[in-house]
Amino acid sequence: MTDLIRSWVESANAPGTDFPLNNLPYGVFAADDGTMPRCGVAIGDRIFDLCAAEGDGLVTPAGHPVFDVPYWNDFMDLGHEAWAELRARLTGLLSEGAEPRPEYLVNQADVRMHMPFRVSEYTDFYASKNHAFNVGSMFRGSENALPPNWLHIPIGYNGRASSVVVSGTPVVRPNGQLKGPDDDAPRFGPSRRFDIELEMGAIVGQPSDGPITVAEAFDNIFGYVLLNDWSARDIQAWEYQPLGPFQAKATATTISPWIVTAAALEPFRIPTPAREVPLLPYLAEPAPMLYDITLEVGLTPEGGQETVLSRTNVRELYYSAAQQLAHHTSSGCPMRVGDLLGSGTISGADPDARGSLLEMSWGGKAPITLDTGESRSFIEDGDTLTLRGAALGKGYRIGFGACSGQVRPARPVTD
Amino acid sequence: MTDLIRSWVESANAPGTDFPLNNLPYGVFAADDGTMPRCGVAIGDRIFDLCAAEGDGLVTPAGHPVFDVPYWNDFMDLGHEAWAELRARLTGLLSEGAEPRPEYLVNQADVRMHMPFRVSEYTDFYASKNHAFNVGSMFRGSENALPPNWLHIPIGYNGRASSVVVSGTPVVRPNGQLKGPDDDAPRFGPSRRFDIELEMGAIVGQPSDGPITVAEAFDNIFGYVLLNDWSARDIQAWEYQPLGPFQAKATATTISPWIVTAAALEPFRIPTPAREVPLLPYLAEPAPMLYDITLEVGLTPEGGQETVLSRTNVRELYYSAAQQLAHHTSSGCPMRVGDLLGSGTISGADPDARGSLLEMSWGGKAPITLDTGESRSFIEDGDTLTLRGAALGKGYRIGFGACSGQVRPARPVTD
Repeated sequence: MTDLIRSWVESANAPGTDFPLNNLPYGVFAADDGTMPRCGVAIGDRIFDLCAAEGDGLVTPAGHPVFDVPYWNDFMDLGHEAWAELRARLTGLLSEGAEPRPEYLVNQADVRMHMPFRVSEYTDFYASKNHAFNVGSMFRGSENALPPNWLHIPIGYNGRASSVVVSGTPVVRPNGQLKGPDDDAPRFGPSRRFDIELEMGAIVGQPSDGPITVAEAFDNIFGYVLLNDWSARDIQAWEYQPLGPFQAKATATTISPWIVTAAALEPFRIPTPAREVPLLPYLAEPAPMLYDITLEVGLTPEGGQETVLSRTNVRELYYSAAQQLAHHTSSGCPMRVGDLLGSGTISGADPDARGSLLEMSWGGKAPITLDTGESRSFIEDGDTLTLRGAALGKGYRIGFGACSGQVRPARPVTD
Repeated sequence: MTDLIRSWVESANAPGTDFPLNNLPYGVFAADDGTMPRCGVAIGDRIFDLCAAEGDGLVTPAGHPVFDVPYWNDFMDLGHEAWAELRARLTGLLSEGAEPRPEYLVNQADVRMHMPFRVSEYTDFYASKNHAFNVGSMFRGSENALPPNWLHIPIGYNGRASSVVVSGTPVVRPNGQLKGPDDDAPRFGPSRRFDIELEMGAIVGQPSDGPITVAEAFDNIFGYVLLNDWSARDIQAWEYQPLGPFQAKATATTISPWIVTAAALEPFRIPTPAREVPLLPYLAEPAPMLYDITLEVGLTPEGGQETVLSRTNVRELYYSAAQQLAHHTSSGCPMRVGDLLGSGTISGADPDARGSLLEMSWGGKAPITLDTGESRSFIEDGDTLTLRGAALGKGYRIGFGACSGQVRPARPVTD
């Protein structure tokens, strides 16, 4: 485990910051002055303007500009050598003792964050055993909770890339077909069981055009974001057989604005949990490829105080993103720069470590009490849901920033 | 029903051609001379080179070039007025009596067709009742064949855009996890039940950023292609619960190279079949939005003769693409130019009108006999599968061209 690397940007040395020099997460920001969104790196409470630095020849990852655009895809496309060189260069430029260059710094408080990359396609997995067991228990009883394939396959389904939004984007409660078990026919109206899913998102940074190994998959992952896969449980319950969730998951998926690189998380690698049954060879991990990252979920009613609902850790995942990506390519499926892989909802074994309200309120049967005394089974209009996460080093944290969204009332339904 | 519109391109007036002047389908082609792929329109056995015509100011749909690129997305983005104007302009330029301009014609036989558009995202539906019933009968018995939601929802799932390829692209048989009902554990190897799905693909030509009506959805569809959603039935059977098909469908989806526009198909609009239960209002069709399009599937063993396996019609679909697209947006899901919607496998009621080998061979229990005397339950290596389709007018046909792919042996599996 490395120590804090000190920076001439003082706020990057503060104990609580998400963005010490060890982190260097990549994002896209725009100032209020009407300038176009462009690439930057978070350092303490500032952003180092990479577009400006590239313009001045201070960082030159390619023979052409790659930071004057509102996405990191062009840089990711350059490959591993460029990734390592930029990180080394930025570490040098921003280290304590280097020439301070405050002219490239922008206050995070003064800018608006945009999507950090163009999402090519979005896939969502189902890799936390506690979550799969909890949801399975509610839908099928504890005897048949875990599907028979679950211990063999990193189960996943394709999601909708067009619905991925950056933290801070309001989320309109979806309408959809709803049918209770005792209803004769479905009706169309606002979801009453609108929920979050606490996940990590892995970003594919290099393309592949056929099956790849788990080791190759690990190398192709550029970085990670927090990911909230908003889910309408009542829409899902009626639509999902036999082809899986569709409109229940298509309203929005919120990601945190900073890509925390695999390089920054390198000191926090841990193995996946012990296998309960042997994996097929194509899924075996040659080295630890999961991470020790603490996570929490907060709920803030409109105009109220936040209650932290849950605390858990990425280590709860049974499959790593590398295993998921390798499986994703097993049929020959081509992957592209900017593909986003959601881990699946991350739930620990304890009731206060669950990653969805569905599990926390056990399908609405055991409503949660907020710190304010109010109760919740699912999300109410005006609620803001916030995910946070960090890998905890010695005297520093590799933080993700907040992944947050407020739920707005559904659109009126007209016949 | 309109009559044949005669062209100065003689081959466009021949009775059997897929591409009379009434059709004007849009594609992307490249000559062998090393020039870049660019946009063209099929006319008889020729292609009218739109990139050259645009360069000379003969067609000018925008203030900037849109036909010098290897995709139709930029043109689709221009909207309905531009769509109608180009069709009118091309009809004028290519009509009998207009000044012949053979300098813009290229022989189809001399070029290679490319993907006609960039697929933003790909969604696959399940809209043929016979197909859903047949597959349901095999998997769950005829009592529970049709899922309870099927008559209420245009069931669909998200597919993988990166796997969509143009007709003529070889398809490598996928490897995947396979587990028979009597096996203790899955193994990893080549799919033994590799199959086709005979579908229509609808191409979204205008974006939307929230729920749209069925009428708006119809207007947003630019055109149609034939679509073969290659499917590994054995991979699917083991993986698909509870989140739907994933790697079983990710190897490849082949489309025909010419976008047949909604405008060309206008004379062939028909209503969807009578409802068996009332639809919710958001899915009601204000006018006929399905099409009368004949379809067929052919199988050619390597080095052998083709057997036509099946003949059916798009009218077998219970939901139109407009209904599917409206449902797709019902949760607020944003749609983008270039989104591709597969209809789902189209099967008629008769055994010789089925759109998949799974149904034709009834899960392998009743192998098909080819004209050559060979038999097939599923696809064998070297087989070429070809879809064809046409709307039949008075003395002309609006054809789609072939949607074809040869299956190659699986990659070797190494432990």
